[in-house]
Amino acid sequence: MDVIDVRFPTSRSLDGSDAMNPDPDYSAAYVVLHADDGREGHGFTFTIGRGNDICCAAIETLADYVIGTDVDGPAALGELYKRLTHDSQIRWLGPEKGVMHLAAAALVNAAWDLAARRAGLPLWKYLSQLTPEEVVGCIDWRYLSDALTPEEALRILREAEAGKTERIAEIERDGYPAYTTSPGWLGYDDEKVVRLAREAVAAGYTQIKLKVGADLEDDRRRFAAARSAVGPGIRIAIDANQRWDVDQAVEWTKALAEFDPWWIEEPTSPDDVLGHAAIRRRLAPVKVATGEHVQNRIVFKQLLQAGAIDFLQLDAARVAGVNENLAILLLAKKFGVPVCPHAGGVGLCELVCHLSMFDYTSVSATMEDRVIEYVDHLHEHFTAPTVIEGGRYQAPAAPGFSAEMKRDSLVRYSYPHGPEWRSN
Amino acid sequence: MDVIDVRFPTSRSLDGSDAMNPDPDYSAAYVVLHADDGREGHGFTFTIGRGNDICCAAIETLADYVIGTDVDGPAALGELYKRLTHDSQIRWLGPEKGVMHLAAAALVNAAWDLAARRAGLPLWKYLSQLTPEEVVGCIDWRYLSDALTPEEALRILREAEAGKTERIAEIERDGYPAYTTSPGWLGYDDEKVVRLAREAVAAGYTQIKLKVGADLEDDRRRFAAARSAVGPGIRIAIDANQRWDVDQAVEWTKALAEFDPWWIEEPTSPDDVLGHAAIRRRLAPVKVATGEHVQNRIVFKQLLQAGAIDFLQLDAARVAGVNENLAILLLAKKFGVPVCPHAGGVGLCELVCHLSMFDYTSVSATMEDRVIEYVDHLHEHFTAPTVIEGGRYQAPAAPGFSAEMKRDSLVRYSYPHGPEWRSN
Repeated sequence: MDVIDVRFPTSRSLDGSDAMNPDPDYSAAYVVLHADDGREGHGFTFTIGRGNDICCAAIETLADYVIGTDVDGPAALGELYKRLTHDSQIRWLGPEKGVMHLAAAALVNAAWDLAARRAGLPLWKYLSQLTPEEVVGCIDWRYLSDALTPEEALRILREAEAGKTERIAEIERDGYPAYTTSPGWLGYDDEKVVRLAREAVAAGYTQIKLKVGADLEDDRRRFAAARSAVGPGIRIAIDANQRWDVDQAVEWTKALAEFDPWWIEEPTSPDDVLGHAAIRRRLAPVKVATGEHVQNRIVFKQLLQAGAIDFLQLDAARVAGVNENLAILLLAKKFGVPVCPHAGGVGLCELVCHLSMFDYTSVSATMEDRVIEYVDHLHEHFTAPTVIEGGRYQAPAAPGFSAEMKRDSLVRYSYPHGPEWRSN
Repeated sequence: MDVIDVRFPTSRSLDGSDAMNPDPDYSAAYVVLHADDGREGHGFTFTIGRGNDICCAAIETLADYVIGTDVDGPAALGELYKRLTHDSQIRWLGPEKGVMHLAAAALVNAAWDLAARRAGLPLWKYLSQLTPEEVVGCIDWRYLSDALTPEEALRILREAEAGKTERIAEIERDGYPAYTTSPGWLGYDDEKVVRLAREAVAAGYTQIKLKVGADLEDDRRRFAAARSAVGPGIRIAIDANQRWDVDQAVEWTKALAEFDPWWIEEPTSPDDVLGHAAIRRRLAPVKVATGEHVQNRIVFKQLLQAGAIDFLQLDAARVAGVNENLAILLLAKKFGVPVCPHAGGVGLCELVCHLSMFDYTSVSATMEDRVIEYVDHLHEHFTAPTVIEGGRYQAPAAPGFSAEMKRDSLVRYSYPHGPEWRSN
């Protein structure tokens, strides 16, 4: 196992700037598993700079649970996931949240990458050919039974067997719809927002997203400019990145309602299930979305039980990787809430499209109101980068989870001793 | 600043064993702040072994926010707390939960220790002499306003000004009621449980606690034995340490109801606000308690808003130290829920009594149904250890937060190179 602290100096251009994160350096606590057969499994957790070293140290601490274990097949991957999250002493540091959970995500995803490579399939197809029983066996059912039982999950998965072959072919032919956040970073001036919004529509996107929450008058001006640039037919989501309290979220969003926001994203703390429920109730018909910072399946369960969200924005590496996301996809299906994953950062687009494509082939069986976030940063560092055509994610074809970064990039951006950091 | 990884090999005797934590090695990620005047501030976060090194690394990462800053007075301590929890890049790893938040707790508490030492007062008296405005200024109000506003907090604190001098004198004379968990560890046999339960009552305790949740028949037998050993007049709380799903919590606790449990503690995941609310509703009149693993003020806020708990069990070093606990004490007062802090581990008794004593002098102004957990382990390692007399915590008199471990203990139990670990 190799662990690498990789950081990209994105704060220099204000890419990724929002109301809570003014100067992120998009980073990855990156892990490579080396198997006896010479194959590799790649995974990472995404951070925005400082503390990436702590995630790397946490991955090293979990090495004993990974090195020497079997990762072939869903049963072995289910066992690995549970070992990584159930160590009683390490569990004390969470449980199932924060740095240790991010570290587990990197390792779980690397193990799935290795398994899918061995099977010669891109992860979304590898997942799609598992039996319902195999999928259910990958999930940690503790704390879920008041919302979803294994039997209900089996029923959902069995129902989706019908038409699966056709949906796989459809994904391979047409891809999966995307929306783009690239126009809307808070550090961009109005002209840049308008130009990028127009370019997004010209490129085929039907939804874009703007960051809001730092200054209401700025938000109104930017939103008005973007709306008039793209017209009424394009969905414009807005994203406050946890900036507000409950009352403030309601008031601020109402002050932007005339520009027809498609959803308000992260209006308040990701921990605040009841806060989101209150905001959604008071803002209807404006829709509420959250998830990129939701720590685990237990909080997603409650967001769904409380009717707190219209869109569930899972993240590929915030919760403990593929296994926990299988539970989250099934929960979302049970409650009828569309999954619109969080992406961007570095490598999140590459990962998350696999999960949405599996959701379509094997769980929800619909793309209605479902879009995957897309941001056009840092894809050049990956060996199998995301391909967008006509505003849609094209289906990954290379075996694995698309998590592998190029060796040159790993060297150049390794922190603090890579050339990119030494020279600045 | 010095950071020390201290671990005690408690797993060798099954002290501290419960349904989720079979073999804890009580540990501290320990920090010493060295001030220019030669004084020191001591703080730590408590863990149960593996991963303690990650907490130490996290504390080192936060060093830049502490070294060179002013800690004199509540305004400076409020600023320090906000700097430690608001760094946007580090916030991404939580926010405000898990390893980085535990690290912030150690540093915040160390800073308060230093400030109280400089004032020549034990922390509970140092807090008690702050003005309502100073207390309110120490709190991070973000995400709280739908449950408690600064103005409401000021009203609570001002009301408690009346009689404060008398309550301080009462604390100094009579101390604060304790309950003991020492009889009830899951690894103990029935004979030991009965013997320790009888000794606890003889020593003046009116409440004890038993661990449950591994095996129902074992729980019934142990609870029956303990109940008949102490009689009906002694409160016996039970603690499942997050072992159950919602339905299972209700069924298991009902199967123990004939032995008259005072509360059921941690029936399910600490993240599951709605789960706790459902359990409490279905178990009434059996009471529900939780808090030792509740990650921050936002989750406590929701537990109170949802009517999910009868007792709030704050922890001195799980949330971000004194500042965040000030918010939690005020929330509990607003919602009329007694605070019965979590303690035990290593050093938590030493810390937490300061918070309960401040709660009595300056916030709730009552001890009704309020008790502080006590466990008789590892106190010998502290320079100002907890003193219990007649089942009551005696008021700490030494200046500071009672967090300082003896130098000999820090050397002997430092991990992995201290003599205690090298020889085993």
